[in-house]
Amino acid sequence: MTNALSPLAPKTFVTLPPIAGMRIATAQAGIKYAGRTDLLLLVFDRPVSVAGVFTRSKCPSAPVDFCKMNLAGGQARAVVVNSGNANAFTGKKGVEAVEMTAEAAAKAVGCRPDQIFLASTGVIGEPLRAERFAHLIQDMARSGSEDAWIDAAKAIMTTDTYPKLATRTVRIGGSDVVINGIAKGAGMIAPDMATMLSFICTDADVAPDVLQRLLSRATGPTFNSITVDSDTSTSDTVLLFATGRSGAPAISDSSDPRLRPFRKALRELMRDLALQVVRDGEGARKLVEITVSGAANARAARRIALSVANSPLVKTAIAGEDANWGRVVMAVGKAGEEAHRDRLAMWFGDVRVAVGGERDPDYSEEAASRVMRQDEIRIVIDVGVASGKATVWTCDLTKDYVAINGDYRS
Amino acid sequence: MTNALSPLAPKTFVTLPPIAGMRIATAQAGIKYAGRTDLLLLVFDRPVSVAGVFTRSKCPSAPVDFCKMNLAGGQARAVVVNSGNANAFTGKKGVEAVEMTAEAAAKAVGCRPDQIFLASTGVIGEPLRAERFAHLIQDMARSGSEDAWIDAAKAIMTTDTYPKLATRTVRIGGSDVVINGIAKGAGMIAPDMATMLSFICTDADVAPDVLQRLLSRATGPTFNSITVDSDTSTSDTVLLFATGRSGAPAISDSSDPRLRPFRKALRELMRDLALQVVRDGEGARKLVEITVSGAANARAARRIALSVANSPLVKTAIAGEDANWGRVVMAVGKAGEEAHRDRLAMWFGDVRVAVGGERDPDYSEEAASRVMRQDEIRIVIDVGVASGKATVWTCDLTKDYVAINGDYRS
Repeated sequence: MTNALSPLAPKTFVTLPPIAGMRIATAQAGIKYAGRTDLLLLVFDRPVSVAGVFTRSKCPSAPVDFCKMNLAGGQARAVVVNSGNANAFTGKKGVEAVEMTAEAAAKAVGCRPDQIFLASTGVIGEPLRAERFAHLIQDMARSGSEDAWIDAAKAIMTTDTYPKLATRTVRIGGSDVVINGIAKGAGMIAPDMATMLSFICTDADVAPDVLQRLLSRATGPTFNSITVDSDTSTSDTVLLFATGRSGAPAISDSSDPRLRPFRKALRELMRDLALQVVRDGEGARKLVEITVSGAANARAARRIALSVANSPLVKTAIAGEDANWGRVVMAVGKAGEEAHRDRLAMWFGDVRVAVGGERDPDYSEEAASRVMRQDEIRIVIDVGVASGKATVWTCDLTKDYVAINGDYRS
Repeated sequence: MTNALSPLAPKTFVTLPPIAGMRIATAQAGIKYAGRTDLLLLVFDRPVSVAGVFTRSKCPSAPVDFCKMNLAGGQARAVVVNSGNANAFTGKKGVEAVEMTAEAAAKAVGCRPDQIFLASTGVIGEPLRAERFAHLIQDMARSGSEDAWIDAAKAIMTTDTYPKLATRTVRIGGSDVVINGIAKGAGMIAPDMATMLSFICTDADVAPDVLQRLLSRATGPTFNSITVDSDTSTSDTVLLFATGRSGAPAISDSSDPRLRPFRKALRELMRDLALQVVRDGEGARKLVEITVSGAANARAARRIALSVANSPLVKTAIAGEDANWGRVVMAVGKAGEEAHRDRLAMWFGDVRVAVGGERDPDYSEEAASRVMRQDEIRIVIDVGVASGKATVWTCDLTKDYVAINGDYRS
């Protein structure tokens, strides 16, 4: 099935500038989809720094295992991504498909397979027939272009209703550096697992260990703070590459003050991509920002916020534009973290709906309902314990979510 | 709104025998619903043993706080339950409503308020006007009958589509003893929080501490092994009372071998009631039993089973009668408990869909789909680590769930 464009989709797509030292190629391999690209190759002219974060699933896909192994080397020459098949829960055949793909890419760009990074997204449990696309990689390596970012973003889509791109430019030591990122993910959708994949490239010159630290720290408040349906893919992968070709000075120390604008821009870009993913949640009609303050610590705040963000009852109420703050109280209560019931306060947008552990004396159903009718809704909950704070983002749970995910795979 | 009878509802309702030493009365107090009973009084002729288990919510309702406090005494003379309002997140007013109700009941039956137990179920955050029904309790205490069990089960319903009752008879030391139970709960539903409440009464003669141990141990594999939508109410309450009037010998030691048949019957009755709750999950069309074996221990097995049972993607696939076992793998992986990916095996009904960490070589989509078309579906997952095992029950996630929960409260 095809899905209508999310009503929360951006009105226009940003154009990403080239990044010196890398090229992009896409192809139609016919892995699952007809009439669209489903294979992406990123080629780096010479070995570049790489960092990665991956799903915490105990049943990770074969490409995730492969990337984790290669990450130890800290260097990359190419990335191959396919959509239409996740190569997850595919046993020995899955490992063979990974090896065949990596060898084809290594041969095409002239490196060892341990400098190749892979990602697959699509249906779980179906063997991935790498022989059906491995032969395409040689040509793709030759034909790559510097400004095919939108094509890259499109080739990795599964059930996404729009491609996701973002770019930032910052200065390091007097030189401009560019950060480009693409992402895919729409929650989970039949027939595919909508894995969250993101590939971020910069022409900054940053050592692999510094890059890893930057990426790991930026993931918490961005990609790890969004939830569509609480389900975690077997294949979530975020990779960050630094070509070092901007002319900006090399950075090899995490505490280097010249990193500050880069760190901030990277986080902004990742949040931008993360929110694009939530806006494309299956069936989503509303983007919901949930901030918990006054928790025992930031971790507790995050757990409470995610409990609210993942509650089917909260999410269906939002879909119904129902200011049902009692369900938010329920979700706070079930999180298992300390909350001071009789000091709890809550806001929907600017409307305070509860204070001092009960309904606000000035509560107006009309004012609260007005907030609920907006496309973007902000919920703030103060749990009255200490000063821990966290923000997460989610979308509403609509009948379309059930329709999309309840259809047969075939 | 009213909801159509669940297609999984029992075809007939069991008739519960009287329990010596107690009477039942119901009334129409008009707390929220019109034209139906919404107030239940259970009266014990003299103080009886009582045990209780409650929600783990950090924002429990005022009646939950009250019951927990009174449980220390171990004795009960009456129970008052209202539907239509949960008296949760109601601050000082909520405590006052509890006190007024308990005092009215204590006066009506002639005891101290600390021998009164209370439960409320319905909307959260609305003050409960106890003065609108407290005056009815005196008459109810006089007019109670021994065999109004079906009336009792109906009075505590909120969005349940049918009353839930169960009974068992067993022998203790040569005498018959009866255990009767009623329950309510249907997940959560607008405009109410569908708290899980259950009241179980027996004429066995069991000391309070023994009764508490029996109840606590029976709750894990029964009421705590069901999930409709992963949301935990502020008000969940299970109370067990023993009138001691059967003529069977008194039991004051948990290890007394004469307890064995009683323990088994109590657990069966609680499982029976728990499954009736799942069958009445909002929008449910399928009852799903999920067994995880081969886990590190029973606790790990239970966590994995609940991860599957609560996954929106698994539940929507089941609603769509889609044998999407890849989503079950995903849910196993995200549980955070050890699972041996490459030894994992899975069955839908009698059909093995996966083995040795990949799709079963003899996998038949047709055979698996045949299982998915049944009303009751059994999923077994062996995670290949050790011998921990657990079973939980859930229902499917349908568009009706979203419709029911997405409607306005008003």
